[in-house]
This record gives sequence, C-alpha cells and structure tokens, in this order.
Amino acid sequence: MYDIIIIGAGPAGISAGIYAASRGKKALILEKNQVGGLIGKVSTVTHYVGVSKGETGYIFAEKLKTQAENAGVEIIKEDVVRVELKGEIKKVCTNEHEYLAPKIILANGTSPRKLNIEGEKQLFGKGFGMNAARDARQYQGKNVYVIGGADGAVKEALYLAKYASEVTIVHFEESLGCISEFKEKVIKTPNIKVRLNTRLHGVYGVDNVESLEFSDEKTGAIETIADPGCGVFVYAGTLPNTDIYTELKLDNGFIPVNENMETEIAGVYAIGDIRVKKIRQVSTAVSDGTIAAIHAAM
Amino acid sequence: MYDIIIIGAGPAGISAGIYAASRGKKALILEKNQVGGLIGKVSTVTHYVGVSKGETGYIFAEKLKTQAENAGVEIIKEDVVRVELKGEIKKVCTNEHEYLAPKIILANGTSPRKLNIEGEKQLFGKGFGMNAARDARQYQGKNVYVIGGADGAVKEALYLAKYASEVTIVHFEESLGCISEFKEKVIKTPNIKVRLNTRLHGVYGVDNVESLEFSDEKTGAIETIADPGCGVFVYAGTLPNTDIYTELKLDNGFIPVNENMETEIAGVYAIGDIRVKKIRQVSTAVSDGTIAAIHAAM
Repeated sequence: MYDIIIIGAGPAGISAGIYAASRGKKALILEKNQVGGLIGKVSTVTHYVGVSKGETGYIFAEKLKTQAENAGVEIIKEDVVRVELKGEIKKVCTNEHEYLAPKIILANGTSPRKLNIEGEKQLFGKGFGMNAARDARQYQGKNVYVIGGADGAVKEALYLAKYASEVTIVHFEESLGCISEFKEKVIKTPNIKVRLNTRLHGVYGVDNVESLEFSDEKTGAIETIADPGCGVFVYAGTLPNTDIYTELKLDNGFIPVNENMETEIAGVYAIGDIRVKKIRQVSTAVSDGTIAAIHAAM
Repeated sequence: MYDIIIIGAGPAGISAGIYAASRGKKALILEKNQVGGLIGKVSTVTHYVGVSKGETGYIFAEKLKTQAENAGVEIIKEDVVRVELKGEIKKVCTNEHEYLAPKIILANGTSPRKLNIEGEKQLFGKGFGMNAARDARQYQGKNVYVIGGADGAVKEALYLAKYASEVTIVHFEESLGCISEFKEKVIKTPNIKVRLNTRLHGVYGVDNVESLEFSDEKTGAIETIADPGCGVFVYAGTLPNTDIYTELKLDNGFIPVNENMETEIAGVYAIGDIRVKKIRQVSTAVSDGTIAAIHAAM
C-alpha cells in the first residue's frame, strides 16, 4: 500500500514523486521503459530553465532518476496494463503485480505516432525509425531523412546535420511548423534540405533501407529515391497513452483536469503531455507534477 | 523598441525571455537587483526537477543568467519606477530610460515582509536581517535565530545548523508550517531548537545584535535574551511588488491572470510569485514564463 502511485517517469511524474516525498508521502512511480520518457530520447533539452548548454536527453533523464531516488521515491520498471480508478482505494495492475493507493497520478504521456506505410514494421530499427540521440554517429557521412516539421523533428535534424552528409527534412505542409530559432538555424545549415508538401509513402530494403518513396501532397505523384544505407528518423507527432483509462471521459484522447490537475474522479490526477493542455513543454510538465503532488498530499 | 519587455529576472522572467527569443522575438528583461530573484538568495534549490543535489541559489541564478544570455535575451539592470500598460504600445520607465513594446510580462515577484519592530532598521546588516546562503560562515560557533516557520525559513535553519552553535527557530504559530521533509530533518538535527507561539519583539545593540526580545503569542509576556554577536535571519513571508501597477485590479495585492497568463489588459501578462496562484514554487514560475512568452509571441 502506497500513499500515491504515479504512472510514468517522465519530467511530470518525477516532479510529482519528488514533491510527494517532500510532503512525507510514500510514493511509487511505475515506468515501463526508461526514466525520462520521451525527453530522455532527444538529442538536447532546450529552453528548460536550469539545463546546461547542449545537455542531452540522456543526461537529463539520469539527473531525474538520481533526484527522485535521493528524494526517497521508489521507481519500479513494470508496464501498467489495467487500472481501477473509482472508489476510495485505487488499483493499478501490471503483468506482475497489483498496487494500491488512495491517490493516483497519471503521467504516462504520449507515444510516437506510426506512419502506417509500407516497410515501417519490417525495417524498424534497420535504418527506419532511428533515434537521433542514440544513432546519429552511425550515419557519419551518410544521408538521413527526418520525417516531420514541428519543433521535435527540426531540432533532431539540426543535431543530425553535425554527423550526416546530408539531412532532408520531409514535411507534408507548405512550411516548417517549428519555432523561428530552429527555422533560422536550418537556413544557416548548408547540409540540410527541406522538402515540403511531401509525405513519406514507403521504405524498401532487406537488412537496411535501400530506397524511399515520397508522395507529393498536392498532385499525389510518387517519386522513388534510391539511397542505400540511409537513415530515416520519424518525428511525426505523438498520441496520448490513454487506452487503459476507460473510466475517464477523454477529450480527443487526452485527459481533462481542473486547475489542481485532478480529473473528474476524485483522487485521480493527470499531468504532463497526457492531459488536455495548450503548451506541451518540459517546464509545463514539471509544474503539473508539482501542483498535482502537493494537492494529492493534502 | 522591443517585441516583449519582461520586468524581473527570476525563474519566471528568465523562462519567459528564453521562450520569447526562441520564437524570434526581441526580448528585454529589466531587473533592479541580481538575476535569480529571491531563489538566487536561498542556500539550496530544492525539489525543482533538474537541479543538482545541494545546488545553491547563487549557482542556480548564474545558470539562469548564462542561459538567457546564450539565448540572446538582453538583460538591463535598472529599477522600473513607472509603467503605462494600456494602449497598443506599452511604456516602461526606469530612472534612467523609457522602454517601449507591444507586449509586457510582469515578473517582478515579491519582497520579504518587514517585521516593523524595534531595532529592525538600525541593526539591518549588523546581525539582523542576514542572508543564510551568504552569511552562514560568519556564524560558525555562534548562535543564530531564524524568524519564521514556513518552508523557506526552516530550509535556511537546516542550512545554518551546519555552521552555527545553536539555531533557534522562532515561529508565532503552534506548530511549524513547513513540509514534513523539513520537519523530520529538524527533529534529527540536535542543534536546532524550536520556539513556538513566539514573535520577535525587538533587537537591541549598537554595532551588532546584543539582545533580543520575544513576546509570547498567548500571554503577551516579553522575555529578553542576551546573546551578543548572534545572527537573526528573517523569513517571515513576502509581499507582492505590485505598487507600480495602478492600472490593474489586484486581488490581495497579487495580479489575476487567465490560463494564458494574460491580465485584464490585452498584451500584459503576469507570471511567477506576483500573480494570483495557489502553488508558489520555482517549477510553477518557470512554467508560467513558458506559457506567457509563447502566447505573447503569437
């Protein structure tokens, strides 16, 4: 029995854990992957107050883990498959165990969206669906393609440009959808090419990507490009991990909360990218965790 | 002419500056004291996700400054004495200059509350009104008194206990008003004494504090304690720095905002400790700055 169970160990969940512990609460964080969540996988953490210049997502995630452990928060690596949120005592089930607590904080964020294209499954990890922070070095002198035009995509394109021979940003809209800081950096980076009004239509190959198909968003025309050994990095948006929360009314897949981060079910909070919100940044996730934990601990 | 002027360089203002710059906006931060605001003066920054263990307010403030400067934010050290917030272009006046911008973000926080007691002015800086982070070392082996029982006070008492012979926390309520983490640490620290239901009534001395008067909150009885050369550290709450914002309706001295951090006057935002809010932490201030700047830059 815990005082507060937190599902997800990204910045929101870690902040909630630290604040819960500071209020004397026995807190458990359940995380199916690594501490840090999606931000733990980015090449650099940008704009969050207090990060060092060029701080990687990996380093930031390590700091989160150490900080939570120093605060006395228990972190268990298990995948939550079912929850019972109604009633005084809530139940959280993984494949291994059941955990109980009067307060639950949902902080398990979002997952990258699939493209649902030819070759996506077969070539995953074989040149397709690579991770810039982890894999950039192996594309030294090779060509890479970044699929997506929002902040997350363009930030990783800028990082990949330090290693790859040429980076092509492939975006289906008429212009990049990123902040001006990144747009200006793209213009100043000679080995980045931007291909707009274009979608990735398929990837082909056996043990690695040998060719790509692009579709023209306006004409529908398909173009095939042979680029053996290239890398394809997909940052085409995310979807909230809310499938298991069948007891909650969702808004476009996200969880609505009040200003205390509490959902429609008393004692159940939702924080970070999984909740309905306008600004999805590390800073707003960390703040959500602070607010939810302080209220849950009252 | 700037795109966005931010008044105050605490965590909220710095976060706003970094985000404004990332959106391609020419941002100016005006700060009358040091970058960091009140948090720059604490002995350690606690619970904020991403800080190192034992990170001092000074180090944290230095990081804020470097980060803002690297982002291209201009910081000018001047004291804002008058503002004109209505109209399309807002005016911010210091004693030296006038600055203009279509968007203004008010982030100049709070100031420590005065006790209004005998000796407060005369002995300020001479043993009274000292700063734990800056002055703890000079009380090695001496007695110190911490006035206040909330988180900020007790955190500094714990820090002072590493240096001082004996630390007395003086609090007017029946129990400490701090988080359980700090309460437990106080219990485990043998050279901290807690004096409840007590107010500091006066400090006396010439070049340093020679004696203190305490009043019993219940009986009104005055007790005089001679403790020549002791240090008195006051953390008795704060008041919002909103005197110059006469065009805004205030709520208990604080500025009301909507969920985008915008005040009742279009183009004027308020963030961090200066705004109406429930949870006053570095994390919520940083988040406020993110949200305000992104909206101001739209």
